[in-house]
Amino acid sequence: MFTYYMPTQVFFGKGCIAESGQVLADLGKRALLVTGRHSAKVNGSQDAFTGKLDELGISWYLFDDVENNPSIDTIRRAAAFAKEKGVDFVVGIGGGSPMDAAKAIALLCTDDLDDEQLFKGPYKKPLPIVAVPTTAGTGSEVTKVSVLTNVHAGTKQSINTPLIFPVYAFADPSFTESVSQTVTIDTAIDALSHAVEGYMSKLSTPMSDVWAEEAMRFIGLHLTDLKGAIAYPVREDLLYGSMLAGLTIAQTGTTMVHSMGYMLTYYRGITHGRANGLLLPAYMKLMEESMADKAERVWSILGLSGSDDFAALMKDLMGDTVGLKDDEIKKFVTMTMPTSGIKRTPYDVTAADLTTIYKAL
Amino acid sequence: MFTYYMPTQVFFGKGCIAESGQVLADLGKRALLVTGRHSAKVNGSQDAFTGKLDELGISWYLFDDVENNPSIDTIRRAAAFAKEKGVDFVVGIGGGSPMDAAKAIALLCTDDLDDEQLFKGPYKKPLPIVAVPTTAGTGSEVTKVSVLTNVHAGTKQSINTPLIFPVYAFADPSFTESVSQTVTIDTAIDALSHAVEGYMSKLSTPMSDVWAEEAMRFIGLHLTDLKGAIAYPVREDLLYGSMLAGLTIAQTGTTMVHSMGYMLTYYRGITHGRANGLLLPAYMKLMEESMADKAERVWSILGLSGSDDFAALMKDLMGDTVGLKDDEIKKFVTMTMPTSGIKRTPYDVTAADLTTIYKAL
Repeated sequence: MFTYYMPTQVFFGKGCIAESGQVLADLGKRALLVTGRHSAKVNGSQDAFTGKLDELGISWYLFDDVENNPSIDTIRRAAAFAKEKGVDFVVGIGGGSPMDAAKAIALLCTDDLDDEQLFKGPYKKPLPIVAVPTTAGTGSEVTKVSVLTNVHAGTKQSINTPLIFPVYAFADPSFTESVSQTVTIDTAIDALSHAVEGYMSKLSTPMSDVWAEEAMRFIGLHLTDLKGAIAYPVREDLLYGSMLAGLTIAQTGTTMVHSMGYMLTYYRGITHGRANGLLLPAYMKLMEESMADKAERVWSILGLSGSDDFAALMKDLMGDTVGLKDDEIKKFVTMTMPTSGIKRTPYDVTAADLTTIYKAL
Repeated sequence: MFTYYMPTQVFFGKGCIAESGQVLADLGKRALLVTGRHSAKVNGSQDAFTGKLDELGISWYLFDDVENNPSIDTIRRAAAFAKEKGVDFVVGIGGGSPMDAAKAIALLCTDDLDDEQLFKGPYKKPLPIVAVPTTAGTGSEVTKVSVLTNVHAGTKQSINTPLIFPVYAFADPSFTESVSQTVTIDTAIDALSHAVEGYMSKLSTPMSDVWAEEAMRFIGLHLTDLKGAIAYPVREDLLYGSMLAGLTIAQTGTTMVHSMGYMLTYYRGITHGRANGLLLPAYMKLMEESMADKAERVWSILGLSGSDDFAALMKDLMGDTVGLKDDEIKKFVTMTMPTSGIKRTPYDVTAADLTTIYKAL
């Protein structure tokens, strides 16, 4: 028995907001726009969106103070602002951080959740959420997860509820054209990690596997052209691939790579995509043992011969390793072991496995 | 630019109602069950569903009078019964007819639509719809279409609105085990027709093509074992394939095969699947001209060499041709030409084309 659920309506392609944004009229008369500080203003996404809102006569209020890996404090400030303005829906424009922030803000607009409830529920129906990705990585535009930084718990933590699937996702590859090389690589590897982890998750299903394979196909096409100038059709494939990878983890969740990577991001400031990219080769080596058929299929789709070949490619893209101290590793392992990502990993992962992998970084 | 939307939550596999039916508790306290006269009572589906409703303390009322190709009169009788009982949601259990009936009934429960409005809208939000397929063909459990017989218009007509996507679909292949050989063949060919037509539709998208190819893969596996006893794993593949084909047409709609086939069903009583199967080879011959790449891909997935090979297979499965009279053909062509299925066909179809195809039957 398996289930499949992904209720977000997707609009994909250049100009999709201008062409199809009229559906927003059904969501109400006042919108909160949630963005980071700069990129939405320079990549064209904010203007495209507010232009459409203006045309539809929808008032909008801007909260442009979302940091990378958004904190609960930021979310609460934005929710207070949204409630003061009486908005009807919440729009996240940006990479994973603004979109994930928008999901949490929408929940807080309809329910006064304390920090524990925010991650555990139960949840009431949030304000409608709209997502506009401007990097090709997170897939958050089609997932039911919001990852936040919880300083009280000392790590990144996830809200996970079908209630935060966006109502609409507008994925316009032209917004990703100004993304730097480093961020393009990091986010593409994040998307690849979603596809591969979802494909290997204990929660994978026949339907999620279809999206995972298609995601790997589109991202895999371009793993070797991420370092130069990137043409629009490649941007399109990467954003499409990252969305397909999002469709995958919307069904499966992520696994140990993400669980381990959160530590590297929280305690060592390593970007999310790079953290995953550093960990993925070791993970695939384990998977070659425990899920040989699927691992073989991954290499076939990516056009690689095996985990050594993959490790060399990742080393080329991710650069230097990290160098963790023993007491750090001990802490990371202790914190990672009980996470749900470990439980979803189809391998009987021990603390010793995690220690070995962290040590090799 | 393309869009994708399919909000139905699917539960697929043996025992899925017992395992996951508790989600129904959110839909209310009173359900209308819509079925045909016999099969839901003998294939286990009705008992499985009512058992779960009883366990959840949900009252249910049975309307088991849906005929094949349900009429508007039947729908109106059922809606009156549902309103009298004050039901909160509508469950269609059966082949396409009871599921399509349930969708129309759910619309009529919240809005007094006259016959013209029923097919044209605008629509109000219907009661929640639940779909339980018991044949592997229609895919209606995941579509936004309800096909009814409109005696006033003298044909089958479709309601088409995202509002009638079922909230939940429970697809249990064991309910299809008692389906006869003839119906198994007819419904499998209907599903194949959905996958192929959706793949070739002017409205096909990258995402609908993914489901179409996967549907063809699963149905194609078994096109040559439909004539003997059918093992459970084959039933599973056929139901899964028909659902994937439903996911396809939920995005693309059907094309000229369905438009032409409706005439054969309405005026000559030929079952829906057989009507499609009789017409599909001629359609594919046109597609080999106008969409050579995709046609080639269809043959590759189905393991066939081309349209002649396919025509021979269909002849073997569908049996004798029909033999239409000239005045019938003239009427059918006149009625088929203005349909939306013709508009979605990627070929500049003329009345002469349709005449030739009907004549060959």
